[in-house]
Amino acid sequence: MQLPHQTVQTPVFMPVGTAGTVKAVSQDVLETLGAQIILGNTYHLYLRPGHELIRRMGGLHKFISWPRAMLTDSGGYQVFSLSKLRKVTDNGVSFRSHLDGSSHFFTPEHSMDVQMALGADIAMAFDECTEYPAEKSRAQESLRLTMAWARRSLDHHRANRHTVPWCEELGGQTQNLFGIVQGGTYRDLRRESAERLVEMEFDGYAIGGLSVGEPRELTMETIAEVLPLLPADKPRYLMGVGYPDEIEMYARMGVDMMDCVLPTRAARHGLLFTSEGRLNIKAKRYAEDQGPVDPECTCMVCQRYSRAYLRHLMQCGEALSGILNSIHNLAYYLGIMERVRKSLQPEG
Amino acid sequence: MQLPHQTVQTPVFMPVGTAGTVKAVSQDVLETLGAQIILGNTYHLYLRPGHELIRRMGGLHKFISWPRAMLTDSGGYQVFSLSKLRKVTDNGVSFRSHLDGSSHFFTPEHSMDVQMALGADIAMAFDECTEYPAEKSRAQESLRLTMAWARRSLDHHRANRHTVPWCEELGGQTQNLFGIVQGGTYRDLRRESAERLVEMEFDGYAIGGLSVGEPRELTMETIAEVLPLLPADKPRYLMGVGYPDEIEMYARMGVDMMDCVLPTRAARHGLLFTSEGRLNIKAKRYAEDQGPVDPECTCMVCQRYSRAYLRHLMQCGEALSGILNSIHNLAYYLGIMERVRKSLQPEG
Repeated sequence: MQLPHQTVQTPVFMPVGTAGTVKAVSQDVLETLGAQIILGNTYHLYLRPGHELIRRMGGLHKFISWPRAMLTDSGGYQVFSLSKLRKVTDNGVSFRSHLDGSSHFFTPEHSMDVQMALGADIAMAFDECTEYPAEKSRAQESLRLTMAWARRSLDHHRANRHTVPWCEELGGQTQNLFGIVQGGTYRDLRRESAERLVEMEFDGYAIGGLSVGEPRELTMETIAEVLPLLPADKPRYLMGVGYPDEIEMYARMGVDMMDCVLPTRAARHGLLFTSEGRLNIKAKRYAEDQGPVDPECTCMVCQRYSRAYLRHLMQCGEALSGILNSIHNLAYYLGIMERVRKSLQPEG
Repeated sequence: MQLPHQTVQTPVFMPVGTAGTVKAVSQDVLETLGAQIILGNTYHLYLRPGHELIRRMGGLHKFISWPRAMLTDSGGYQVFSLSKLRKVTDNGVSFRSHLDGSSHFFTPEHSMDVQMALGADIAMAFDECTEYPAEKSRAQESLRLTMAWARRSLDHHRANRHTVPWCEELGGQTQNLFGIVQGGTYRDLRRESAERLVEMEFDGYAIGGLSVGEPRELTMETIAEVLPLLPADKPRYLMGVGYPDEIEMYARMGVDMMDCVLPTRAARHGLLFTSEGRLNIKAKRYAEDQGPVDPECTCMVCQRYSRAYLRHLMQCGEALSGILNSIHNLAYYLGIMERVRKSLQPEG
């Protein structure tokens, strides 16, 4: 996948850098881990430090000093999950900041403006993430909104995407815009959503509204239903998923891109992913365990530190605990994708 | 200074790794920064994870994966500053843990046993840190205790120091023990303390009980008084001091070793040290400042990140804020010492 800042090998896992930082992991470590693309959250960056400030700093890449690829979400998901007192109309969403209660109004056009100011390699259409469970009528109404907003997002983005901060510097290359398939757990709605988005000709397509509480079989069925409807020559991105076994399975099903806060969030709670399964580093049984987190892992944490030390750091609430746990979990997720990529390569 | 795990170039600044971690900075970064020796706090490590556990893990070096030199304090300072309900007798100090209220009893012999189990390259005699201000009679009584405890520390350490975890592995090399000069701000007491410790023949000597609230002139006078009394062929360590201008001045006065929590603690509060003076990275005026923290600094933070980004991280309470701020401040402190070392070298 050719992006303005990086040619990305797919399938790829994208660490989540909500506020312009993958929590507790520095950019040079992300590079060492082989992260090719990271995600930024439009909602958070819009509120703090503000997209106009980031534009003046030359865009998100320069602001956070990340030379590789980036993707921003549309802000929609966080508006619906984090903000208070939101009110949805056809025009957009008014909401209050979860930080200071200040009032804001997001339309598809505004989401595009914010994302173009941030200047990630990939922006996402403004959508409504349909909750689970949702009645069919509710899912239908939600999808109607998402489809109308997709059209408006695309039109506004196509008309203005030359304004991203680095467009000139990178010889006229500019930001990609992906559409987001919604439709809840209803096959026909998902199908309709996919087909209409493909007609609009986005630069890539995402499957949204999954991993929001539905049973895993439904997640998989929905992915299996939607994937064949999306053009194979454009990136297919499954949003906000999931556990290691899931991301491996979905990558093998044909998903090109995935993101999830799980590796870093779980790390901060002491949950580590290993080739032998999950491990809660807080457990007493690791107190004197001199082995690495994962004997098969070659990451900088497993090469240097013992389970006993990591447990001690967690017990003490030391910052290094979150740092090292996050590095290991990210290495594990990125390693899964690397294995899948190798296994999918045609033999030479 | 030849130590079992590292030949240390002096004067040297020792980052403080209270609980077996220099807060928010990983060991590989400390190595990159050129840290030659780090400090561990006996009181904290004794309470958590416990010195016997660390002994079973092969000692502190192995437990935290730090191959270079380490020093542990005696625990005395924290017993007096952190613990609750302490009661001092000639035999030792009974106190309650600040963590869980559990009861403990430290004697000079016990402090030595704990420090030998931890197995740093340098252990410190058990002392009472005389508070400031202190009446002369109080300083005198405190010094009497410290001197008696120094004798007992030395005797117990000399008789048992072959038991440190790595003694055999390192061909019979073993732990050093330093005595600590106390005496408050009374010249005659300081002099008496220094002379009596030198007679006992420790492996090195520390000046304790400074930077505890006394005016800076008194700190300097005391150092100037004590330093000439200490043998020049043994390391001279000034404990718990101080600001950048102080550590430079004291290094030039002949102090070989210093430690202080200031660079890392200040970093977590957004106070950064630079060649242009102190800088509070939270300040609004850095919101769009694309320059590095310190234009003259070659550390990995100044080479990559802007003040604007560091301010943003701090505003958001992001973990990376503490990480990057700490790295810069440590680089600054270590850089001061490197400059002093170079300027003190005989010209070639």
